[in-house]
Amino acid sequence: MSVETHSDATSSAKALYAALAAGDKDAIDALLSEEFVGHAAEGLPLGMGGEHRGREAMQRNLWWKIGKHFKVEAQPADFRLLDDGRLLVAGHYRGVARRSGRRLDAEFTHVLAFNAEGRITSLRQLTDTAAWIEALGADAPLQRIEYSVADGVATMCLNRPDARNAIDLQMAQETLVVARRIAADPTVRAVLICGNGPSLTVGGDIAFFRETPPAEYADLLVRMTTPFHEAFRILSRLDAPIVTAAHGSVAGGGIGYAYAADIVLAAEGTKFVTAFAAIGLSGDGGGTWHLPRLIGPARAARAYLQNRPITAEQALEWGMISEIVPPAELRERAAALARSLAQGPTRAFGRMRALLRDSANNDLSQQLLAESEGIKATGDTVDATDAVASFIARQTPQFEGR
Amino acid sequence: MSVETHSDATSSAKALYAALAAGDKDAIDALLSEEFVGHAAEGLPLGMGGEHRGREAMQRNLWWKIGKHFKVEAQPADFRLLDDGRLLVAGHYRGVARRSGRRLDAEFTHVLAFNAEGRITSLRQLTDTAAWIEALGADAPLQRIEYSVADGVATMCLNRPDARNAIDLQMAQETLVVARRIAADPTVRAVLICGNGPSLTVGGDIAFFRETPPAEYADLLVRMTTPFHEAFRILSRLDAPIVTAAHGSVAGGGIGYAYAADIVLAAEGTKFVTAFAAIGLSGDGGGTWHLPRLIGPARAARAYLQNRPITAEQALEWGMISEIVPPAELRERAAALARSLAQGPTRAFGRMRALLRDSANNDLSQQLLAESEGIKATGDTVDATDAVASFIARQTPQFEGR
Amino acid sequence: MSVETHSDATSSAKALYAALAAGDKDAIDALLSEEFVGHAAEGLPLGMGGEHRGREAMQRNLWWKIGKHFKVEAQPADFRLLDDGRLLVAGHYRGVARRSGRRLDAEFTHVLAFNAEGRITSLRQLTDTAAWIEALGADAPLQRIEYSVADGVATMCLNRPDARNAIDLQMAQETLVVARRIAADPTVRAVLICGNGPSLTVGGDIAFFRETPPAEYADLLVRMTTPFHEAFRILSRLDAPIVTAAHGSVAGGGIGYAYAADIVLAAEGTKFVTAFAAIGLSGDGGGTWHLPRLIGPARAARAYLQNRPITAEQALEWGMISEIVPPAELRERAAALARSLAQGPTRAFGRMRALLRDSANNDLSQQLLAESEGIKATGDTVDATDAVASFIARQTPQFEGR
Repeated sequence: MSVETHSDATSSAKALYAALAAGDKDAIDALLSEEFVGHAAEGLPLGMGGEHRGREAMQRNLWWKIGKHFKVEAQPADFRLLDDGRLLVAGHYRGVARRSGRRLDAEFTHVLAFNAEGRITSLRQLTDTAAWIEALGADAPLQRIEYSVADGVATMCLNRPDARNAIDLQMAQETLVVARRIAADPTVRAVLICGNGPSLTVGGDIAFFRETPPAEYADLLVRMTTPFHEAFRILSRLDAPIVTAAHGSVAGGGIGYAYAADIVLAAEGTKFVTAFAAIGLSGDGGGTWHLPRLIGPARAARAYLQNRPITAEQALEWGMISEIVPPAELRERAAALARSLAQGPTRAFGRMRALLRDSANNDLSQQLLAESEGIKATGDTVDATDAVASFIARQTPQFEGR
Repeated sequence: MSVETHSDATSSAKALYAALAAGDKDAIDALLSEEFVGHAAEGLPLGMGGEHRGREAMQRNLWWKIGKHFKVEAQPADFRLLDDGRLLVAGHYRGVARRSGRRLDAEFTHVLAFNAEGRITSLRQLTDTAAWIEALGADAPLQRIEYSVADGVATMCLNRPDARNAIDLQMAQETLVVARRIAADPTVRAVLICGNGPSLTVGGDIAFFRETPPAEYADLLVRMTTPFHEAFRILSRLDAPIVTAAHGSVAGGGIGYAYAADIVLAAEGTKFVTAFAAIGLSGDGGGTWHLPRLIGPARAARAYLQNRPITAEQALEWGMISEIVPPAELRERAAALARSLAQGPTRAFGRMRALLRDSANNDLSQQLLAESEGIKATGDTVDATDAVASFIARQTPQFEGR
Repeated sequence: MSVETHSDATSSAKALYAALAAGDKDAIDALLSEEFVGHAAEGLPLGMGGEHRGREAMQRNLWWKIGKHFKVEAQPADFRLLDDGRLLVAGHYRGVARRSGRRLDAEFTHVLAFNAEGRITSLRQLTDTAAWIEALGADAPLQRIEYSVADGVATMCLNRPDARNAIDLQMAQETLVVARRIAADPTVRAVLICGNGPSLTVGGDIAFFRETPPAEYADLLVRMTTPFHEAFRILSRLDAPIVTAAHGSVAGGGIGYAYAADIVLAAEGTKFVTAFAAIGLSGDGGGTWHLPRLIGPARAARAYLQNRPITAEQALEWGMISEIVPPAELRERAAALARSLAQGPTRAFGRMRALLRDSANNDLSQQLLAESEGIKATGDTVDATDAVASFIARQTPQFEGR
């Protein structure tokens, strides 16, 4: 590929970004070939994701729609010619959502193909779709998860009951949207995770997987686990303790919603099934980190390799869950526990969670040092100094979370 | 702050160290302001710790008393002006205790404040007080811990029964003194940890915490956990196995005395309570390292966040303790076990303890290598080569610990 | 030591390697002193290992025998004079086994001593003896282990029943030979480990240890654990899941054959005993890595320090084994399980095994990333894409292991 070609492709791409920024329909039409096909990131809100065949469809269903809801610019930063002649452009969408006023700053990559005349024949877009959804705020009501905050408790309830809360790309992304909202909300002092319908979640939505051509299956799995795992990473770093109410089938990557919790209540009859062996996958949702720690490596190996279900009773005996409760009481018991934790010393809870989370990767000396740092930090909180006084006065301390 | 000022403050400080070394009372009086207030590290022995108001009190209760019991010099090494005009001096006390003849080498920091005339208005001292106590030897009988060595067993018995062995600064420091004595004594081949009175220990002494102003609470916690944690670090590196006899309430950082053990015997009715959530602290004593490893992360999270007591029965079932025994038999059963371990292959025990301690931070390949190194080192001991002969002769091997 | 001396010793050594390569008996005789003593690595096949007294014995029992079975050359690469005047030569044996045609590439070190006249008085050889055995292939029938592959299952059966499968140097080396064969055989999709006779294995062969002088005991232990541990390292990196059938006494380093498994079935009455404390050694076979993870650190400390047997019932309750079965059914049940795993999604099993193995050394973020990489890799397998179709069609997927 000659420098000339690189330079041509880059020039065309730059012209396209300029035309988009100017909203110049004629210029856009001139740059795109007639047989143009666009492909936007699947998880974009407002129906913008997926394939758009033809210049008109691309503009109507993606670009003008973006313009209607966002004041945003695609800012390319890096242009690289691929060895098949396509051009990879990396950059950021930067701007605001018009109604919510929320900032949008989302990474993108675009892969552009060209025909012999140098016109753009296709554009494939990947972007942090959860950031787009998040920017819309209340303008983008969540479709798969009910989310609310009350009494210091953030409740995140999987809400696709007809599909037993099977996880598709949309739910994976909304999990990240919700995790980010929780992390950004200083009033949240405890989190409750639950699921509407007959099961917490049966895991990945195989019917949804089936819609993807086999050659793109691995890519789809990565696009789903990326926001899904980022959500669990964020949840693991909260100060607020997390309670999960598990019931029915809890399977595959969906067990991640239980692993994310400090305390899991399970309804009688709950079954945890890794399920990955049945579909020839190695697993996601953090199970290979959590399960050997929770129930020991031999039981975890069996759960993965033999795909043996873990009953609620086994989960309790093996130390994976905290309590088994009657199904009818599950939601309220879990909510009450979350409300009670929301009255606790939130800063100390955050330090405990961090110390317990990082414990596995420290040796004893390092952890003793981390505990001294933690006790210094929490000894300086209002909750701790007030608690000493309450203790001496034989009163129950009233923690304010600071 | 000008170089001039730094130079003045440093000069005054140097003059003070020279006057102290010379025992020149007139020079000292001239350097200190009339309203001088000294503050010595709380845990100094012989009643020297705490606040001393006035030049006379400082000399009588700290400096002359040091001179009476120690032949020691404060050797400053580094002078740094703080941004509030105070001077931080770091250095070492070096010398010997007069009666015991034991060496003293203890780090210090002094923070000196000055008035407009350049006279010293206050001096706040921090030092490794356990080193001071240790240097006194038998001249400084331990006040919180009974310590003795017999039949190869070092017995360390918390001895503040009226306060249910609540841990104050003194006990934290004596724990370090005792840990150092054990590590330095080649006759010790097993360790027994126990507590006099109704409980092994209820943890941090809240009444003692209450005496500290809230603004200094975090500092106090650090001053307590520093020697306390150093003690546990030292105990974790002994060759000698450790047995702990637990009874009554075992709470807060005090559970550290159980975590330190290889084998814990617990009296019926023993309760382990993290207790930190009740006082808004994140925890000390190594619990965030040990507890998730001992009982699993989910039970540990519950013990920390919900402050749920762990009964002796649960501790046994979950693998945290070795045995439950009748209270009347606890001490003797634990002592007998320690005596029996003191007859074991001490070098091999030390390697086993090190391998098991470091296991969590090695991958399998590294640990297999460490096992090969360990088996080479222990294969070279008299105990190991004698044991092969005994084994073939069908005799019980007599281990000498070498 | 003068350069002269170094140069003399090196010249003699080089002359020896040349004479050996040329098969020049006269030249060899001239280089060796009359009182020459050779010592070949103990684990060499065909009875070549051990001491050979005299020039004739060395040639007859080692060098001509090598020449008969191998077309191989000792290629020295590095000559270093030791401070006692001996010469250390490091290099590689390179060639093929004559009948099997298999390549041999085995590291060696030779330590040569010289008399005043510069003639060689002794040669002590160490080499990767498992590589020699492996090169012989079917020419070197295994003496301690039965090995076969059928229906995708590699079966490795300890076969020294009269000694209750006690582990001597030979068995340690053959364990490595077998592990390498398994790793090199792409048809293997599951592994079964078992033992003939009354016990899986009682661990190190003490009677064999007794034959070694005490001063060489540590060395012997290292020579045994080196191939033994390398075998377990290799097994831990297989894609194929491992099932171990445990029965009778499973002791010492021999528990390693159970630790190596993902799934352990144990016959009623099986006892696991670390046994190391009884002989004053720190332990091998990976136990200090596996046992604290499998049953928790407190139980592991007890098993090591107090040498307490772990019964099959305890092993089951504590999560170390998967199931207890009647002795008469053990072998067939374990074989059936292995056959069933050999029908599974082998690539996904390999990733699960790797993720679970490495989990302990990753923090949650790293492991979530590794899971995403794993799901991408396994999502690209035929087994995974076929399984989605089978799932939708409500058929049981037929995995081909690719």
